[in-house]
Amino acid sequence: MSVIELAKATLERIAADEDRIRAFVHIDHDTVYAEAKRLQNTGTKGPLSGDVIAIKDLFDVAGMPTRCGSAIYGEHQAQRDSAAVASIRAAGGLIVGKSVTTEFAYMTPGPTRNPHNFDRTPGGSSSGSAASVAAHFVTMATGTQTAGSIIRPAAFCGVVGFKPSFASISRSGLSVFGETLDTIGGFSRDVATVSRFVGVMADRPGLITPERIRVPKLALWRTPDADQADDAALAELERVANAAARAGAVVTEFVGGSGWSALLQAHTTIMAHEGARSLGYEFTAHPNLLSTSLHDFLSKGAKIDGETYLKARQISIQESAKLLVEMSSFDAILTLSAVGEAPCSTISTGNPHFNKVWTLVGGPAFHLPTGTGPTGMPLGVQVCCAPQEDERAAAVALWLEAAIGYC
Amino acid sequence: MSVIELAKATLERIAADEDRIRAFVHIDHDTVYAEAKRLQNTGTKGPLSGDVIAIKDLFDVAGMPTRCGSAIYGEHQAQRDSAAVASIRAAGGLIVGKSVTTEFAYMTPGPTRNPHNFDRTPGGSSSGSAASVAAHFVTMATGTQTAGSIIRPAAFCGVVGFKPSFASISRSGLSVFGETLDTIGGFSRDVATVSRFVGVMADRPGLITPERIRVPKLALWRTPDADQADDAALAELERVANAAARAGAVVTEFVGGSGWSALLQAHTTIMAHEGARSLGYEFTAHPNLLSTSLHDFLSKGAKIDGETYLKARQISIQESAKLLVEMSSFDAILTLSAVGEAPCSTISTGNPHFNKVWTLVGGPAFHLPTGTGPTGMPLGVQVCCAPQEDERAAAVALWLEAAIGYC
Repeated sequence: MSVIELAKATLERIAADEDRIRAFVHIDHDTVYAEAKRLQNTGTKGPLSGDVIAIKDLFDVAGMPTRCGSAIYGEHQAQRDSAAVASIRAAGGLIVGKSVTTEFAYMTPGPTRNPHNFDRTPGGSSSGSAASVAAHFVTMATGTQTAGSIIRPAAFCGVVGFKPSFASISRSGLSVFGETLDTIGGFSRDVATVSRFVGVMADRPGLITPERIRVPKLALWRTPDADQADDAALAELERVANAAARAGAVVTEFVGGSGWSALLQAHTTIMAHEGARSLGYEFTAHPNLLSTSLHDFLSKGAKIDGETYLKARQISIQESAKLLVEMSSFDAILTLSAVGEAPCSTISTGNPHFNKVWTLVGGPAFHLPTGTGPTGMPLGVQVCCAPQEDERAAAVALWLEAAIGYC
Repeated sequence: MSVIELAKATLERIAADEDRIRAFVHIDHDTVYAEAKRLQNTGTKGPLSGDVIAIKDLFDVAGMPTRCGSAIYGEHQAQRDSAAVASIRAAGGLIVGKSVTTEFAYMTPGPTRNPHNFDRTPGGSSSGSAASVAAHFVTMATGTQTAGSIIRPAAFCGVVGFKPSFASISRSGLSVFGETLDTIGGFSRDVATVSRFVGVMADRPGLITPERIRVPKLALWRTPDADQADDAALAELERVANAAARAGAVVTEFVGGSGWSALLQAHTTIMAHEGARSLGYEFTAHPNLLSTSLHDFLSKGAKIDGETYLKARQISIQESAKLLVEMSSFDAILTLSAVGEAPCSTISTGNPHFNKVWTLVGGPAFHLPTGTGPTGMPLGVQVCCAPQEDERAAAVALWLEAAIGYC
């Protein structure tokens, strides 16, 4: 298929379902065809040739508006590509449009629906990205995670999500919420594809062609807050752990993680304080254009003093170090991605409780869809490693995908 | 003096000298008066009340163009304040305009001259910021440092420069060159003022009202590359160390730092690779609007593969950890800020050799002007601490300033 045929097929596929799924905030057919023509004429080939890609509406794309899920910015067009988008273009990927984000990547949802059930949330903040992959609109989509904004929507939409190590991908041209938290990653429908995608954005060749692992040593960790997860989510985690063991993995219950609660608390403080500082302009100049929920969160954040914030940063560094030592005898942690199936809601994007610690620790995290829950919605597991062990995380996720499949 | 009188006095002062110093790329008198009126009418008071501030042209300021020292962006106006600018406004600071940066914070200079000698460079990349403080145009100016872009211009212009710990100040709304390097900081004419300024942007109360230190334990480190410094710079460092000892400091020769060269090399690799990724759009879409020097650097960076980059990141983490252990028995390192006086050049901004390691290590660094060199240009010293020891660095710099003065 030529790039122009690919563009045509993609736009037709989107046109057929977009009025119900509402994954995009901006698609311009002429721009897509022009870009397809450019790729075809220049003969640009690369690791993303043949891929069609949605860009979360927090990333600048030259000539498209960056609205950040907010009414504040109107039709204002970006004058440049963000670094991640530039690397996608250079690798031959065809950019289709801007996918819906919640308001400034916080909790107030956009119009996107879960492709598996239109009454359910697709999760957030990378709502349109996860949904556009689940709906087969695109092969890949960018996301960002401050608390659980990649892994949770991946879980709710039943696609693979990959948040690499903190600072793997340049945030130049990204609207940032949490200075020490926000991590760029991506979505796709299988581990190899999402690894290739993140590998391009991060220029990590070991992700573009990931190695295979033979016998992964997995630590099964329900975390001290397992009681906050639905029975179905816990049962799925158990089932995957058992299947992995049967397939040859060494699966051990994780003993440790005494810093879990301290890390969760630190995350809350850091995110509120950093959010209030990053969105200081919007909070001061356009309070009436912010949702009540975001306005309340930023007010709370603005009241957290600098000492408290720095203390939380310190606790985060200390407790992360302890956890990483405890994790170091395993290839990866196998844990919960979300509290359960996507909730039946269009006013909430669900609970990121099981994602915050991993964002704060800064290591790679995969969501792997593995099955369905009691109401037929997707369920899965999260695979987490220490910072910079992205290649190993990808290898473990590949192994699990092959060993367990989706059922 | 009312805020409006302050605005008037500032604009008059700038008008008198700006045609020779060329510190600004954008000043609009109406905007400055409008902002002064707003501050006066709302009665906004805060730790920056009475301060007039220049913003390096890499930071978005709502309603002003962000040109990044490049012809690429033209008159395109920023739609929002960057996080640092929002915090300055909220603290009652009066923003005067955008100060000249070198092209995208790399080496190609803008038109700014050194206020002490118009034939000399003010240093870079924060050229206009350092010059506007030295010329008494403003009391404070923002800067960013990727290699030596705050400390070097502070040294050349004879003002105090303060680069706080990495990630102290939100980069939201900043044009980023090096994702893991770029650090926001500031300039002023004394330590207490620059600490207050950085303290506001970082929300670090311990910097806004810094504590005093009684008997600092200083490590005098000429580094293994002392032979790259001019005799005058080394003599000044020696003189300051002796004066500090006479004033009661414990000054010890630093033994250690075997990772110096490895850190320098890692910095070069990381900066080139990250720069090529951050400026991927400009490199691809506007190669003819980039200077030869930046284009060459980005070409070089684009050829550094992902493995090499990750290896350099690893070395940086390992060698930084070793250096920090060696530093831990001292309150601060006393070292060179620059190779010597500002060079007699308008085509180069000088050599950041003695700044790169401290940017990579990520701790706070102060430049303290302490005297003049053989041609009458400013000289001084650099004070460096481990990451997050910003309050201690400020206390040591305050002590040195009081004990030694400027002579």
